[in-house]
Amino acid sequence: MNKQEALRLIEEIALFGKGEKGITRLAFSESDIQARNYIIKLVQAMGLLVRVDGAGNIIARLEGSDPERAVVMTGSHLDTVPEGGKYDGTLGVVAAIQAVKELQTRGTLAHPVEIVIFAAEESSRFGLATFGSKAMTGQLHVHTLSRLKDENNITFKEVIEQQGLSVASVKQAARSAKTIKSFIELHIEQGRILERQKNSIGIVDSIAAPTRCKITVDGVAAHSGTTPMDERQDALVSAAMIVLAVQEIALAQSHYGTVATVGALKVQPGAVNVVPGRAEMWVDIRGIDHDSIIATMQELKDAISAIADAQETPVSIEVTSAEKPVAMDEEMAELIESICRDKKIACQRLHSGAGHDAMNLAHVAPSGLILIPCKDGVSHNPEEAVAEADIMTGIEVLTEVLYQLAR
Amino acid sequence: MNKQEALRLIEEIALFGKGEKGITRLAFSESDIQARNYIIKLVQAMGLLVRVDGAGNIIARLEGSDPERAVVMTGSHLDTVPEGGKYDGTLGVVAAIQAVKELQTRGTLAHPVEIVIFAAEESSRFGLATFGSKAMTGQLHVHTLSRLKDENNITFKEVIEQQGLSVASVKQAARSAKTIKSFIELHIEQGRILERQKNSIGIVDSIAAPTRCKITVDGVAAHSGTTPMDERQDALVSAAMIVLAVQEIALAQSHYGTVATVGALKVQPGAVNVVPGRAEMWVDIRGIDHDSIIATMQELKDAISAIADAQETPVSIEVTSAEKPVAMDEEMAELIESICRDKKIACQRLHSGAGHDAMNLAHVAPSGLILIPCKDGVSHNPEEAVAEADIMTGIEVLTEVLYQLAR
Repeated sequence: MNKQEALRLIEEIALFGKGEKGITRLAFSESDIQARNYIIKLVQAMGLLVRVDGAGNIIARLEGSDPERAVVMTGSHLDTVPEGGKYDGTLGVVAAIQAVKELQTRGTLAHPVEIVIFAAEESSRFGLATFGSKAMTGQLHVHTLSRLKDENNITFKEVIEQQGLSVASVKQAARSAKTIKSFIELHIEQGRILERQKNSIGIVDSIAAPTRCKITVDGVAAHSGTTPMDERQDALVSAAMIVLAVQEIALAQSHYGTVATVGALKVQPGAVNVVPGRAEMWVDIRGIDHDSIIATMQELKDAISAIADAQETPVSIEVTSAEKPVAMDEEMAELIESICRDKKIACQRLHSGAGHDAMNLAHVAPSGLILIPCKDGVSHNPEEAVAEADIMTGIEVLTEVLYQLAR
Repeated sequence: MNKQEALRLIEEIALFGKGEKGITRLAFSESDIQARNYIIKLVQAMGLLVRVDGAGNIIARLEGSDPERAVVMTGSHLDTVPEGGKYDGTLGVVAAIQAVKELQTRGTLAHPVEIVIFAAEESSRFGLATFGSKAMTGQLHVHTLSRLKDENNITFKEVIEQQGLSVASVKQAARSAKTIKSFIELHIEQGRILERQKNSIGIVDSIAAPTRCKITVDGVAAHSGTTPMDERQDALVSAAMIVLAVQEIALAQSHYGTVATVGALKVQPGAVNVVPGRAEMWVDIRGIDHDSIIATMQELKDAISAIADAQETPVSIEVTSAEKPVAMDEEMAELIESICRDKKIACQRLHSGAGHDAMNLAHVAPSGLILIPCKDGVSHNPEEAVAEADIMTGIEVLTEVLYQLAR
């Protein structure tokens, strides 16, 4: 295994979208396209057969001795959140490449192995997460695509069309379940469990599902100098109360592993001398206990209703996604466990609070998710850091899993 | 007095910057420049001598029989807040034009009369209020201009340079106090006092001064799915607490006439799946009781300090302006009162919660501010509305004041 090559590749990918603070490689942005093109050239140079499917997923295939057999698939994503880190997604892409390089040295395997770089995994730009893997597994409501746009009002449709894709081609990206033997993804944990337990490998049992909603508070825009305090219908004051309600409700539910976040808030008209007339907020609720998520959502609705009445600021809630937690394949988990045991690598089972492409693949094929520790659990942040030894362990386990599945 | 002409002019100006919601004619924006050019042509067509000073103030002069005498000045502004109304500023410009048209029919007056359209009165775009009148009265710290920029990072310097102005020319816009005999401005009240008291004219005793600060909360950006609730340093949660503290403190001080508003709040990175790492807020505190404003600011600082400590999110406060309330000229107020008495117009004295160009002129010349009622006190809002009869009464009183001062 070439350690320096893996580390260098991570650094090279990190240059695409590198800014003053972290890496901003939003889905289908110029820097994302540049990173994707860089990887396409790299996997072509490895002698793999490369194609881009109708959803923009890059698929690089190591042919098997029997091309008719179902493929063993691995991969992750290259797009990032705004001001993100070097490892989220990128690690899984680099690990897949390094693992396949190693497999190439072991002679032809029975099953084809495919590296997939999933398109638009992060929801940051268009509010839709794991676009590429949803498309590939036929879980996308294509009609919802037409109303997606980013904060500059650039539509998703227009963005994919610039890449030679279309709503129709996205539909065609769906693959039949029987063509995929299994899927395995390597990712950083984005939490602190492995670090605390001093384990190098985490084997995911289930992936938490995000429930997301957009909350809009309507107040009355008014002059900030002349409108008495007791006559205001200040949308931001109500929004602030909702932010604190989200926090309080999630704290009370946190023993079920549920978390809730107001990640974005926009104020209109947003001038220093105008009482806010409108506030829009985006809430993300996650957990592995579905009942707790439902309870959190219900309590939030009750709290919002009380705030709206008391403040005389009508509030509307639009639930934009409500997914169920997804179980990973037990046989796959046991395979990973046995590989770790053989190699004397400290591992443990855990849940993933973060969503991943693996949760979509799990609907069509036995799927696994391997996590490695990241420093202080920090992710979606420029400070994201991973120990070199853990990267190498992750690649080693991934390689062995692919080998066992494909040979 | 030509009533239809005044109303038509208001509607015509309202077309510049008209959007789906209200009028957005930000200082020195394209629509502001278009409205200004429209007015320049209009006052030129009246036979007035028109010039634009080094700060972009438009000055249209009706010559007096003795051009050496100090000028009687009137005017207001054309720029608006984002999604503002038709009357804020515009009313004073239209009234000045209509009043001077009437004066032109009364033969030559002893003093010159000048209509001034002050540049960049609203603070919405660059965070600096009453730029033009500050420049004209020599109250501008020219070195502060160099760090002003709008939310698209367009600098104030670059914007005025596009208009053929410069930091040096702004300095030259300052006029000697002895060249100005008096200043009188007509404006909508932007409050409900006149409407409630059923008075047509308000005569302002003093103008509240804004104290403004920018508050920055530093949290830690983190993954919204994997970061446990009790390990977060969520900048938006702290910001929400500060919004509510501002509200609570201002409510307690409201019997002194003090108000406080968080008009703008920005969250970084602002993605639905990232715990906010930073929040920036802009606070506006106003009142006519200087001690109450100081107390409000102190209590806010104490509250912020407690929130910063408890939440482990450092908070910095940058005070961007701290002005004292300004008294209007008593003789001028008495003149307006006597005119109302003669014309049997119901009037009253009041304070102005809103800042106006008149507060800067008051530092160099006896100044007055006449207010007319606006519906429900609503302003800085597309719903701004004024009764036609009140507009005509306002123009009538303004005309008579100018006549008495200039004859």
